[in-house]
Amino acid sequence: MKAVFSQTSRGLLLAALLATSSAFAADAPKPATKPAPTAQEILDAAPVSAWTTYAAEDLVVMTLSDGTEAVYALAPAFAPVHVDNIRKLVHQGWFDGAAIIRVQDGFVVQWGRPDEAEDDKPGKKPEGIVAPPPAEYEKPAAGIAITPLKYADTYAKKVGYVQSWPVASDGKSVWLTHCYGMIGVARGLAPDTGSASQLYTVMGQAPRRLDRNLAVVGRVIFGMENLTNRKRGTGALGFYKTPEEYTTIVSTKLMSDLPADKQKAFQVLDAASATMGSWIKARAETASDFYKTPAMAIDLCNALPPVRPKP
Amino acid sequence: MKAVFSQTSRGLLLAALLATSSAFAADAPKPATKPAPTAQEILDAAPVSAWTTYAAEDLVVMTLSDGTEAVYALAPAFAPVHVDNIRKLVHQGWFDGAAIIRVQDGFVVQWGRPDEAEDDKPGKKPEGIVAPPPAEYEKPAAGIAITPLKYADTYAKKVGYVQSWPVASDGKSVWLTHCYGMIGVARGLAPDTGSASQLYTVMGQAPRRLDRNLAVVGRVIFGMENLTNRKRGTGALGFYKTPEEYTTIVSTKLMSDLPADKQKAFQVLDAASATMGSWIKARAETASDFYKTPAMAIDLCNALPPVRPKP
Repeated sequence: MKAVFSQTSRGLLLAALLATSSAFAADAPKPATKPAPTAQEILDAAPVSAWTTYAAEDLVVMTLSDGTEAVYALAPAFAPVHVDNIRKLVHQGWFDGAAIIRVQDGFVVQWGRPDEAEDDKPGKKPEGIVAPPPAEYEKPAAGIAITPLKYADTYAKKVGYVQSWPVASDGKSVWLTHCYGMIGVARGLAPDTGSASQLYTVMGQAPRRLDRNLAVVGRVIFGMENLTNRKRGTGALGFYKTPEEYTTIVSTKLMSDLPADKQKAFQVLDAASATMGSWIKARAETASDFYKTPAMAIDLCNALPPVRPKP
Repeated sequence: MKAVFSQTSRGLLLAALLATSSAFAADAPKPATKPAPTAQEILDAAPVSAWTTYAAEDLVVMTLSDGTEAVYALAPAFAPVHVDNIRKLVHQGWFDGAAIIRVQDGFVVQWGRPDEAEDDKPGKKPEGIVAPPPAEYEKPAAGIAITPLKYADTYAKKVGYVQSWPVASDGKSVWLTHCYGMIGVARGLAPDTGSASQLYTVMGQAPRRLDRNLAVVGRVIFGMENLTNRKRGTGALGFYKTPEEYTTIVSTKLMSDLPADKQKAFQVLDAASATMGSWIKARAETASDFYKTPAMAIDLCNALPPVRPKP
């Protein structure tokens, strides 16, 4: 009996997110025809024009106390008042010295200032922001062009992309969806919308139930693993019980406020590009030596437009 | 301007997985009618008969080098040969001294023996197991009763539950789905199915693309956070680059092999119970002071039957 697995090839092959190549099948018979390009090969061959560079004003850089970073992109087209609040909060140093205060497994990572004033206790308050902001949970569908994802969705009549943001629609309105890595604004009971003084990002199975009930304001595009690899909180709902468990956010800056030589550019694949269409099809419908039974579908949150540092 | 959020209430309210109660709305006007019970209240009120206790022979206890534990339940009804292999591997100590060798953010945590023999290198081999096992990826649908989940699914005509396991079906066959916490068998290229000498569990958005392409053999029912809170691997596909990064699995035991006073019993909510139906409805369709806009749907991987230590 022969051990047929190598850690490396097995790993590579299991990596549905990246690889469908048959290049690892060194011992397999050569296929008669050239195999279909993999999703990764399609991305690698994308023309420069298929990538959109984020505006530096729309990128936020968080530096954590262990020296790691996370970068998120803002979505002013969907939540302009909340996004304006975030820019103002960043400028006034609100998040400098803030902390990751909650990590609930399979759900969210949440950060904010532990010393923020609450109804029942004094503390710091944000200055000069709109509080409460309007409920920027969804937008009228009229005039919004959605690049559709053609597969069925559990939650909405239609799903797809607007400016490379994942969206859902019932025909009357359009909203950003709570996919992995998307950022929302923590809040209390309605009509409270949250000012953006505390934010969360989604991990685990997309909690689409939150859609249209909270303001989605952005997406983590770099360093997501530096938020998700934390110890889970053992308090109710994953809040840490003690400040010693917090991960401090040393500083939060708009990319556009950094010195030119410290700025980094990031790009997102244009959801309306031919490359995006091919990439989705490769992941959903293309059989390979590993995926003998292609799913013939892919859900929106498994088909977020790829992001990359600008080459 | 008044700060209307408290960290605690905001946390509680954001916790879609648990709370839809209006109990936190101390300042809200009293509703004229009694609010609908929350998903948690429904669970708490479930009769004993709604809970099924896992057989001790179907539970595997992993003890990690930091003293934490994870417990997973096996699914012999779906992958009997792979499950039999797992029991034999556990009995021969295959996983004692194994390690978490891969953590790919938003995808999988994988464990096995770094010293396992591979095609191109000598090493340890499992003994007395069926290798390769048959491809236990799906079963003929005939005669299998599925408790349906009534909402649309992106990947399959029908989804629901068999013996509290999440399943999908195209009418011809039935298969276990790659939801958060489900356990599968790592493998190389087909027809290799993996012997079960390396296993993975799913985190992040359910990679349903893996369905019907790998053997799903169980579900983590306790301590999932002790697997997911690890540093992500920085090698290709999230493999760790150095053994120093591994988390060692000190021991793996069948619950039934532990001394009686060390055994713990776990239960899963019967997917065919009235409680399960009410729980799903509460999470999908019930508006509350927090969820003003209920989704009116829930996807399978957000509706896994709840598990608990037997009270």
